[in-house]
Formats: sequence, structure tokens, C-alpha cells
Amino acid sequence: MARARGLSEFSVIPRLKALFRSNAAQVTVGIGDDAALLTLAQRSGLVWTVDTAVEHVHFERGWLTLEDLGWRSFHAAASDVSAMGGAPLAALSSVIFPARFGASELERLARGQRAAARALGCSVVGGNLSRGTELSITTTVLGHAPRPILRSGARVGDELWACGELGLAAAGLRLLQRGTRRGSSVAARRALLAFRRPRAQLQAGIALSGRARAAIDISDGLAGDAAHVARASKVRLVIELDALEVALTPALRRLALELGVSALSLALYGGEDYALLATGPARARPSGASVIGRVEKGQGVWLASSKTGRQIRASGGFEHSGGRIAPRMGR
Amino acid sequence: MARARGLSEFSVIPRLKALFRSNAAQVTVGIGDDAALLTLAQRSGLVWTVDTAVEHVHFERGWLTLEDLGWRSFHAAASDVSAMGGAPLAALSSVIFPARFGASELERLARGQRAAARALGCSVVGGNLSRGTELSITTTVLGHAPRPILRSGARVGDELWACGELGLAAAGLRLLQRGTRRGSSVAARRALLAFRRPRAQLQAGIALSGRARAAIDISDGLAGDAAHVARASKVRLVIELDALEVALTPALRRLALELGVSALSLALYGGEDYALLATGPARARPSGASVIGRVEKGQGVWLASSKTGRQIRASGGFEHSGGRIAPRMGR
Repeated sequence: MARARGLSEFSVIPRLKALFRSNAAQVTVGIGDDAALLTLAQRSGLVWTVDTAVEHVHFERGWLTLEDLGWRSFHAAASDVSAMGGAPLAALSSVIFPARFGASELERLARGQRAAARALGCSVVGGNLSRGTELSITTTVLGHAPRPILRSGARVGDELWACGELGLAAAGLRLLQRGTRRGSSVAARRALLAFRRPRAQLQAGIALSGRARAAIDISDGLAGDAAHVARASKVRLVIELDALEVALTPALRRLALELGVSALSLALYGGEDYALLATGPARARPSGASVIGRVEKGQGVWLASSKTGRQIRASGGFEHSGGRIAPRMGR
Repeated sequence: MARARGLSEFSVIPRLKALFRSNAAQVTVGIGDDAALLTLAQRSGLVWTVDTAVEHVHFERGWLTLEDLGWRSFHAAASDVSAMGGAPLAALSSVIFPARFGASELERLARGQRAAARALGCSVVGGNLSRGTELSITTTVLGHAPRPILRSGARVGDELWACGELGLAAAGLRLLQRGTRRGSSVAARRALLAFRRPRAQLQAGIALSGRARAAIDISDGLAGDAAHVARASKVRLVIELDALEVALTPALRRLALELGVSALSLALYGGEDYALLATGPARARPSGASVIGRVEKGQGVWLASSKTGRQIRASGGFEHSGGRIAPRMGR
């Protein structure tokens, strides 16, 4: 049990306390006691998730700034709340940081978290700091969903909807893995931004609430996450490739050409989007949702092509070196 | 972004889902969706904390079984809820595990967590699994405290109370650091157990609720944690060494002799106890609390000896290589 080093006796903590100060009604006691103390406006529909970003597994330090990392890890966690049709209320953050990490690094990370929390109307009310070998950020978010959307509600006859941009963050990741840190085109810059500064689909999730019958966030790729909905709902999800192609942005198509990969495969098998996949009846479709397929009787995820008139079974999605117990069940 | 290896496509997750299945009234949806869904009996007095145990920082694998580690990390997090006078309701667990870690290791860890959760009347409702270099377990616990006890409420004239055994876990840690894995005496076995299977002081915390004016859990050593209360309450805490000595168990005194250290220093500066330190008026003292000092005007933590009639300032407490933002403020 080594003593704290490098953070000069945790002088950083009062700075974090000041940084995360909150006037939100639900925060009775924030950072500064054994636990945070909350007073919520509601007793039911509380959604609660935890997500971890690990260096060398989910990111490399050279790929993004610490502010980006704080933002990204926060939105990744909040995305689960959006997928349930909820809005985040409060969060705790636990950071494991290596020896080379000092107070200024922690503060930069925290600034990214604060920006993300503010953008989502949420407060960071506490956390934990531990030494370790590699950098990791674990974020737990508590939110409220008045009409929670589960994975298990999809019904035969539902449309399959996508909300948010598909594949662009995966294209950004490919660029980073190839050593591209600054995009030479607008499309490349958008893709890098999609990876570094993803946005939990807060408004889309709220819009789906009361309309969608099932939803999931697409963090591991459309095909893989669709499989979770198919399994939980005991249905077959058919992705119409023509419709999916129409839903892809010109930026993604251009980048796919540059990268020498298919735009469809980036959308189907690339992760990190934090877009939402949902199902629901046509009459209930929110304006921001693109129809990319339908729910049929059966099981699994299938790709339908109007050119061939055939359906082929989608292979497994993108996989991290990990998975969330709550959101990634059944792999 | 390496693919998942060793866990055979996360076949472990359905087993974890079965292991953590809960009938608790507050769990609407547990493991199996994007987020857990809770329905609580109360809107206020919700206490929420996160704690992380990191290999080589907080523990070594050779010191305890994976079941012990699951138990220990869970109680360490729940201890913060006890220190607020609350009872845990639900928890999420995020595990970063190294390559050598497989499904059976994760299940053993989970069995320890489940045993701890059951002992505390609490449900594990979700979590996260990620690959990494070193093993770490992050536990976030949501609880309820009808009358929350803060660190900041100590008043001049209060007694200083200890609930739970002081110093024994620190003695166990010393034994482990010296290579002792099995105690050769009852006292040594008790000390090893105190380190491996600590218990959050659930009943003591509830008993303090409505009686104590301030409380904290002693995870970093009595002297260090007392300093947090002194700072938050803007008072001077005087630890009476004669009274503290009386509060120590015979087991600790015997072990201190074996270890060649003073029993008082183990209690004052040894961490890992998860006992509670509280202050309150004499008339309100619960039966399980030992008086070990008093609250005076001033600041800091002082050690009073009846032999010398003098007070000396306590030095800083035991420190991990980390600290919780919420509970370890102001270091």
C-alpha cells in the first residue's frame, strides 16, 4: 500500500470539488462527505448504469485530449440512460491513474467530464481516485425515465429506427488507428470529432419515450446491438440495406471511399456511435428517426437486399475487449 | 480495440445474471438491459458512493481468495453508506480484468460480491466488464439514510465514539505483507479475517442515525479520518489515548506484541478497518459505541495522555495510493 505520490497529498481534490459544484435541486450534498446525498423528484423510473473506459482497450492517449476523454467517457455512460428513454440526473466518477498522471492531468480530464455533464443537464456529485498502472475512467450515471424503454418490447410488425449518425465514429477510429490525428477533409474532421466527442442521444431518447417499444444504444455496432434486441424481444430484426444506405451521411460515404472500406460495413459493424436503435409502430415514429428495417417473426438479425431479394444473416458486431453486464447481456 | 478473449464470447454473463437475480421490491429491471431500472420507497435521503480496489495498490492476489476480494470490495463501498447512517439498497459493479482472468475467476469474484450484498440486504443490479492490465473492482452503492449523518455536524462538547474493531485489519495487512497467509494463533486468524472479510458497520450506522451529529468510516486510519471530521466540522477532535487503549481488543494487543508494533499506532494509523468514527452528545450515545475522546474548540486532531497531561498533534493517517473524491476530500 504505497502512499500517494505525484498529486501532492491530493491538493487536486479541493479543485475538483470547486469544479463540480452544483446548485441542482437533486443534490443535497455533493463532493465532500462519505457519500453524496440526493433528493429526487421521483421514486420510480430511475435508471442506473456504469461504464468504464480503459487505456489501450477503449482508447489510446495519443488519440484524444484528456478533455476529450472526460467528455467521451461521460457520454458513453449517459448513452445507456438515453437508450432507456431517460435523462441523466447525477453521476459519480472513479479514475484509476498511472504514475505519470498529475494534478493538472486530472483537472483536464475533469473539465471534459464537467462539460459533458453540463451539456446533459447532469451533476457530478462524487467519485474516487486510485493509483494504478493504466488510466481508466469508470462513470456511473443515475437518471430518470418516465416511460422506460426496454430491449425486450419489440413486436412483430414494428419498424426498425435509427436515431443519430451511424458509422462516423467508427470511421474516426479507423483514421486514428492509421495514425491520422488531424483530418485533411471536412468529412475526416467530422469523423474524428464523432469519436472524440460523441453525444449521448438525450433528445432522441426522450422523443422515443412513449413511442418506441424497444431501444438500445449502438456502442458495439448496429448488427451486434440489434442482436441484443432480437434476443431480448424474441423476434427477428431485418435491416433493409437500401434504407440503411439512404440513412448514412455523405460524410461517411466519402470517408469510406478514402478508407477503402464499405460505408455499410462501418455502420453495421463499427462501434462507438452512441446512436440509438429502436423499434415501434409506424404511426408513432418520431421525426428524427430513420426507418432502416422491420421486425419479423423469428430470431436473429438479418440483412435484406432489394437487389438480390434475399436475406442474409448478419455476423456478430464489433466487440471491445469487454462488455457491460447490464447492456451487453447474452454475448 | 482487441476482441474479447478468454471469456468465450462472454458466456460468463448469463451466469452472472442468474447469480445476481433479485426479487427485491426496488429492482424493476436488473441485469439485462442498457441500464438497471429501480423503483424506490423514498425520494430523499438517498446516499450514493463509488469505491475502487486496485491490484498492487489495495490488495495483492496472493493475500486473499477471489471470493474474499468480491466480499471485501463490496463492503468497502457499502461502508460509506453506513457512515451516513444508511442501508444499501442496490449496487453496480465494474470489473477490469487481466488476460489471465477467465470465466471461473469472474464467477468466484461475483460469488463474493453476492455474499456481501446478501449480508447487507442489497441487490447487485448491473455492471460492466472490461479487459485491462491489472485487476480492479469498482463498486457503486445506492442506499437510503432516513436521517443522514454528515462529517460536518460535530459540535464542541460532543463525545468522540468508535463503533467496530480498530486496528485489527491493519494488523492483518502487516501479517500479509510479511508473508503470513495462515495465522498460527486465534488472534492472527482474526486479523487476517478482518482484512479479508471486513464488514461495513450497517447496524452501527443505523444505530448512530438520529443520535450522532457527525460520522465517517475509518478506512484510512482513525487519525486521518478524524482529521476529515475536524476540518468539515471546524472543531478540534481530542483522542484520549487511555480511553482508546481500553477500546482495543485483546486480540489486537497480542498481535501488536507479535508484530513488534504498538497497538495504539495500529489503531491510529492503520487503515482498512471500516469501523465508524462518530461524535454526539453523551446522552445520545448508542450502546455499541466506545467513547474514545471529545470534541473541543479549535482545529486538528490531538492525542491526549493522562500520564503526561499533555496533548500532542496527531500526524496524518494511513494513505492508500488513492482517495475517494467524496469521502476523502481535502487531503
